[in-house]
Amino acid sequence: MGVVGAGAVGLAVAWRCAQRGLRVSVYDDRPGSGASHVAAGMLSPVAEAYFGEHKLTALLVESAARWPGFAAELAEASGVDPGYRTEGTLVVGLTADDLAEAGRLWSYQQGLGLPITPLRPSALRDREPALATRVRGGAVAPGDHQVDPRRLVAALRVAAERAGVVFRPARVGALSEVDAAVTVVAAGCGAAALTGLPVRPVKGQVLRLRAPGGGPPGFRHVIRGYADGEPVYLVPRAGGEVVVGATVEERADTEVTAGGVLRLLRAAVELVPELTEYELVEAVAGLRPATPDNAPLIGALPGRPGVLAATGHHRHGIVLTPVTADLVTELIVTGEPDPALAPFTPDRFPKEPRWN
Amino acid sequence: MGVVGAGAVGLAVAWRCAQRGLRVSVYDDRPGSGASHVAAGMLSPVAEAYFGEHKLTALLVESAARWPGFAAELAEASGVDPGYRTEGTLVVGLTADDLAEAGRLWSYQQGLGLPITPLRPSALRDREPALATRVRGGAVAPGDHQVDPRRLVAALRVAAERAGVVFRPARVGALSEVDAAVTVVAAGCGAAALTGLPVRPVKGQVLRLRAPGGGPPGFRHVIRGYADGEPVYLVPRAGGEVVVGATVEERADTEVTAGGVLRLLRAAVELVPELTEYELVEAVAGLRPATPDNAPLIGALPGRPGVLAATGHHRHGIVLTPVTADLVTELIVTGEPDPALAPFTPDRFPKEPRWN
Repeated sequence: MGVVGAGAVGLAVAWRCAQRGLRVSVYDDRPGSGASHVAAGMLSPVAEAYFGEHKLTALLVESAARWPGFAAELAEASGVDPGYRTEGTLVVGLTADDLAEAGRLWSYQQGLGLPITPLRPSALRDREPALATRVRGGAVAPGDHQVDPRRLVAALRVAAERAGVVFRPARVGALSEVDAAVTVVAAGCGAAALTGLPVRPVKGQVLRLRAPGGGPPGFRHVIRGYADGEPVYLVPRAGGEVVVGATVEERADTEVTAGGVLRLLRAAVELVPELTEYELVEAVAGLRPATPDNAPLIGALPGRPGVLAATGHHRHGIVLTPVTADLVTELIVTGEPDPALAPFTPDRFPKEPRWN
Repeated sequence: MGVVGAGAVGLAVAWRCAQRGLRVSVYDDRPGSGASHVAAGMLSPVAEAYFGEHKLTALLVESAARWPGFAAELAEASGVDPGYRTEGTLVVGLTADDLAEAGRLWSYQQGLGLPITPLRPSALRDREPALATRVRGGAVAPGDHQVDPRRLVAALRVAAERAGVVFRPARVGALSEVDAAVTVVAAGCGAAALTGLPVRPVKGQVLRLRAPGGGPPGFRHVIRGYADGEPVYLVPRAGGEVVVGATVEERADTEVTAGGVLRLLRAAVELVPELTEYELVEAVAGLRPATPDNAPLIGALPGRPGVLAATGHHRHGIVLTPVTADLVTELIVTGEPDPALAPFTPDRFPKEPRWN
């Protein structure tokens, strides 16, 4: 079989399939250079549970539940630590308006029975003294974890190679170039041109900061917040890095703009003032593969025998990596789609209008 | 003779001396990598005329007057355009407070007889429609020009080589390593360790933006302003680049920080809103070689026969390049210091306390 795309999803599909005895080739001229390179790596089924997205939320919850085992097995198989951390996530509102807006969402998430608990400002700052004194309130989502996507890709690559996967450093311009009975298209935004699926790029700008003095950051939780209406997240890594993200722009370029960086830095510093002293190490933009309903496209392509899609993961590619890999592998090995895939079939959109 | 340091000042001294028939070697393991690489290139004798710095102001005015001829001769000698532009400078205040603070300085500059003329907001925006409508007022300094320091260094290097200057890619750890009867120390902040002179680093962070679509920026004047108390300048280049500077920090590291970038971007966007759409191409920090009285150190070192200093130019290295090169060359060729150098002799500070 062939996998087009060596991001997190493509590599995990390749690894899982090779574990089941399949001969797998992965095609990518720039492995790991797409959305996986930019992603922050939040595993947030709760904080990413939005109004009206019940089926997507269920998939996020299912995949997040697989993450501890997936991370442990991957670290064992590759010898590379993917940076999985379980300190949980604080969600906060800077102003009364921010808190009111965020509170509506938290109530919805609580109503779904998801693990999220409101905290008073004093309780928030007990957990993270680095939070600005201005922060009006928040909540804790203890099950919303994180992983380092760049380490994840490196670990998946080693694990896949050890399982026998062959890497072909070629750009695939058409699926006919893939010499395999079964082809999985995990090409992110590139899937649109390869398959005609309604995948469109949604640009995200992301910063990487580094704590001064070579130490770890001054906070351990993932912090997601609204700061004067601006959504922002801060993901601390053990090595001192803090990922600050992300803009959401309906654009297809990958330019880092003055306005994007300004919005991210302003919101980040308002929530955690000590970040002013951090080094700005990197500013980069990537393209999320988005679909009309924000949910991924996983399963067989209609009218294209032997071609499967595993793309369109939008903001959720990293958290959905384990479940996507498992379900695609089962589909290939057994020929039968798991019922869990029913809401995510690639043929669920009308042909017209085109979205990309 | 030997010149230690291949920044703008060192290269210009070497070029001028070689033109007078001297055999010149320039020592630098990383030519053009110091303050010249970071500098914005404003040639601002008027806007940089601060209270109580009459003698420095006179030197700035003298050097700025030499710039047109210097730039033309350099372009001719090197075949490299150093990017000298004469559209002039607008100085502006965003808020009433900013305007009040800036207005005191402009009145002082007018009182010295320098060419600076207040403009009403409508007249400001007639000249530069890109200015924010919030800008409360400003002035024009038509004689404050600009040059591109990176092009300047490239041009000086070619001109110096064509004049016979030899480049030695070596780091000079002590002046005894320089095999010459006369040595000019133009090593920026490195001069402190080489000579014991009171030169200290003053960190500056600078951004480079690029106009969208490959065109030139949406404004032609250099714009200097105060935005909610934050001083900032914007230098537009013909090729589409806009230099945004600069922080002033009493620190010796060259880290780009989240807080520094945030302050620059916020002030820049407040003065010229269209900059939000510009690409952020580069963020870099450099170290200005500053002295206790903000004026340069030019002339013979006391007790060190054959050693001259040409350093300590602080914020004014690029504008002072022509006059520094001319006066140092005259001093070496004739043995007599020009009276204009009297305020800038390296021995004007007491030995104690040490400043570096």
